[in-house]
Amino acid sequence: MANDESKASVLLVGGGSVGAIAALNLEIGHQATVTIVCRSNFAAVIQEGYTIRSCDHGTINNWKPTKIVNTIPNAASEEGPPFDYIVCVTKNIADVPPSLADLIRPAVIPSKTVIVLIQNGLNIEKPLLAAYPHNTILSGVSLIGANEPAPGHIAQDFPDTLHIGAFANPNLPPDIQESAAEDFVRRYSAGGKTHCALDPNVPRTRWRKLVYNACLNPICAITGLDTGRIRLADDAVAGLVRPAMLEIVAAARAAGHELPATVVGDMIDMDPLEMYLPPSMLSDTRKGNFIEYENILGEPLREGEKLGVAMPTLRVLYFLCQAVQWKNKEIRGLVSIPPKGSFVT
Amino acid sequence: MANDESKASVLLVGGGSVGAIAALNLEIGHQATVTIVCRSNFAAVIQEGYTIRSCDHGTINNWKPTKIVNTIPNAASEEGPPFDYIVCVTKNIADVPPSLADLIRPAVIPSKTVIVLIQNGLNIEKPLLAAYPHNTILSGVSLIGANEPAPGHIAQDFPDTLHIGAFANPNLPPDIQESAAEDFVRRYSAGGKTHCALDPNVPRTRWRKLVYNACLNPICAITGLDTGRIRLADDAVAGLVRPAMLEIVAAARAAGHELPATVVGDMIDMDPLEMYLPPSMLSDTRKGNFIEYENILGEPLREGEKLGVAMPTLRVLYFLCQAVQWKNKEIRGLVSIPPKGSFVT
Repeated sequence: MANDESKASVLLVGGGSVGAIAALNLEIGHQATVTIVCRSNFAAVIQEGYTIRSCDHGTINNWKPTKIVNTIPNAASEEGPPFDYIVCVTKNIADVPPSLADLIRPAVIPSKTVIVLIQNGLNIEKPLLAAYPHNTILSGVSLIGANEPAPGHIAQDFPDTLHIGAFANPNLPPDIQESAAEDFVRRYSAGGKTHCALDPNVPRTRWRKLVYNACLNPICAITGLDTGRIRLADDAVAGLVRPAMLEIVAAARAAGHELPATVVGDMIDMDPLEMYLPPSMLSDTRKGNFIEYENILGEPLREGEKLGVAMPTLRVLYFLCQAVQWKNKEIRGLVSIPPKGSFVT
Repeated sequence: MANDESKASVLLVGGGSVGAIAALNLEIGHQATVTIVCRSNFAAVIQEGYTIRSCDHGTINNWKPTKIVNTIPNAASEEGPPFDYIVCVTKNIADVPPSLADLIRPAVIPSKTVIVLIQNGLNIEKPLLAAYPHNTILSGVSLIGANEPAPGHIAQDFPDTLHIGAFANPNLPPDIQESAAEDFVRRYSAGGKTHCALDPNVPRTRWRKLVYNACLNPICAITGLDTGRIRLADDAVAGLVRPAMLEIVAAARAAGHELPATVVGDMIDMDPLEMYLPPSMLSDTRKGNFIEYENILGEPLREGEKLGVAMPTLRVLYFLCQAVQWKNKEIRGLVSIPPKGSFVT
C-alpha cells in the first residue's frame, strides 16, 4: 500500500452522515484518498460538497472528499490504483436485494481488497466471506450521533468512536488480518480528531452493542416511541426492554461472551432521556425505509436459540419486524397479493 | 316488566353501527322501546335518523329509535319508567376513565336494572358487579359485520348473531339471572330478523372468541396489517398468530374450557382473505382511537399466567399494546412527560 505517497485508496460506500464523517477522518490525516459513493445526496454533494457541524471537527463548509461518485466504480476500468479498502457504512438490509456482496462486487479485487463493514449486527461478514473467501473483512463498530438534516448537511452531536478488528477469516493467516486492522486504525486516526481503536474481541463487541440494538431498536420502531418515551411509558422497560436485553446477555453468554452485569442498565440509560432520541430503526420506519432487523435481531435470535437459549421476547419482536418489513415490501411492489375480492354471501 | 303494553324500556349506550342494529332488532319486535345514547353522530341521527343497508334488514331510511339522547339519562329525574335494561355496546377501554360502571351510573337502579354488556373480552363484568352487586349482568357476545361509513349511515355486511347469558353473580339466585337472559333473548329475537340465542356457557364462549380477538386484533394493530395480509406476510401466522392462539387455547383449558381442536385454524381463516378486513383494534389505531387491549388481551393473559400457563407471545403483545396506548395518551394529554432538553456535552 505504498501508492500515492503511502496514501491508501479507500472506496467509501454510503455518503450520508456516518460516511461523511468517516471520509473526513480518513482524509484529514493524509493517509488515505477517499472516493465516496453518494446516492440521494449526490447532486448536492458534487455541487456544494459537505457542510459539516461537528463536535469533533467544528464547522467545515463545502468540503469534498477526493472523488464523489454515484455508482460503485469498476476496479478493472478505473484510471487510478485499485482500492485498498472498501468501507461500507450503508444500512445492511439482508432480506432485500441486492446483497452488499453483490453491490460492491465491481470494486472488489479478490484476495486483495480489504472490506470494512461499519455496520450493526451479527454474522454480517458471512455473505462477504462466502463471496470473497480470500479477502480480509474488518469489523467496524461505531458509536456516533450524526444525522443529515438536509442533503449534504451533516450534524454530528456525539463524538465518533470506532472499534476496528478483523472478522476471523479461516482462509487467511491471522497476522495478515490483524495487520490490516492496525493499518486501517492508523490511517483513520491520523487526523487526530476522532477515537478509533483496535477491537481485541470483535464478536464480544458486537454482542455488547446488540444489547441496545436488538432490543431498543425494534421495540421503539414497533411502538413508535423514542428511547426517552419508552422509559416513561408505563411498564415498557420492565415488560419489554429489560427482558429482551437479558435474552441477548444470555445468548452472548452461551456464545462465550460474558458481558458485565451493568450492561443492561447502561444500555437502557444510554440515550439521555430528555433528548427523546429515535433509534435508527424508528427513524427508518418513520421515513418509510426498510429496517435492518435480520442482522441486528434475526441473527442473534438464531444464534441464541441454536445454543439453547430461550428468547421469547426477541422471537415475537423478530416476527413483528418481519411483518412490518413485509408491509413495506408490499407498498414498494416487491411482493404482490391477490386482488381485493367482493364479499359473496 | 309489564309497563307500556309489556314492552321493556331499554337504554342503549352506544349509537354506532352495532348499537343501531341492536336498537332496530329490539324495536321491530314491539317488545322494547329504545332510548339510544349517541355521541359523535348525535346531530345526524336526531335530524335524519339512521339510514341502514343491512343483510338482515334490507334498506331502511330515516329510521329513529323511540328516543335519541346524547348523555346518559338520570333514572331519578326521567319522565318515563326507569330502564329495565341498559345495553352497553361501546368500546370498553378499561385503562382510560371514565369506567363503564361510572358512565352508566345515573341510569342504573340498584338491585333492579339488568345490565347487558355486548362487548369483547374477559372479566368485563367484574367492575360492574363491584359497583352494582345486586344487579343482574348479562353477557352479549356478538358476531356482526357492520360499520358506519358516514354519521348515521349504517352498512351491515355480515349477519348479526348474538349470544346472551348471565355472568354469574354470586349475590343473586341463578334462576333470576337466567330468566333475565331468557327475557332479553325473547325481546331481541321478536322481530324475527336476527339470530339471538341463549348462551349456555358464557366463559367458554368468551374464551373461544378470544382465540381471534386476543391474537389477531393486537397483531394486526401492531403491524398495521389486516387479516388478509397477515396471512400472506411471510411467517406471521406461524411465528405470531398460531403461537398466540395456542396460548389462549391453553389458558382456556387451564380455566376449564376445552375448545375444539379446529378452533385455531377456524379463527385464522375466519375473515375471507381477499376482503383484507381490519380487525377492530387495527381500525382503532388507524383512526387514532384508544384500543381495548386490557379486556381482550390483558385479562386472558393474567388469567392464564395465574393458572400457570406460559404465554410468552401474548405477554410481549400485551406490553407492546400498552406502549401504543401510552403513546396515544400522551398525544391526548392524559400523561405528561419532561420537556425536551438541550444536549449538554
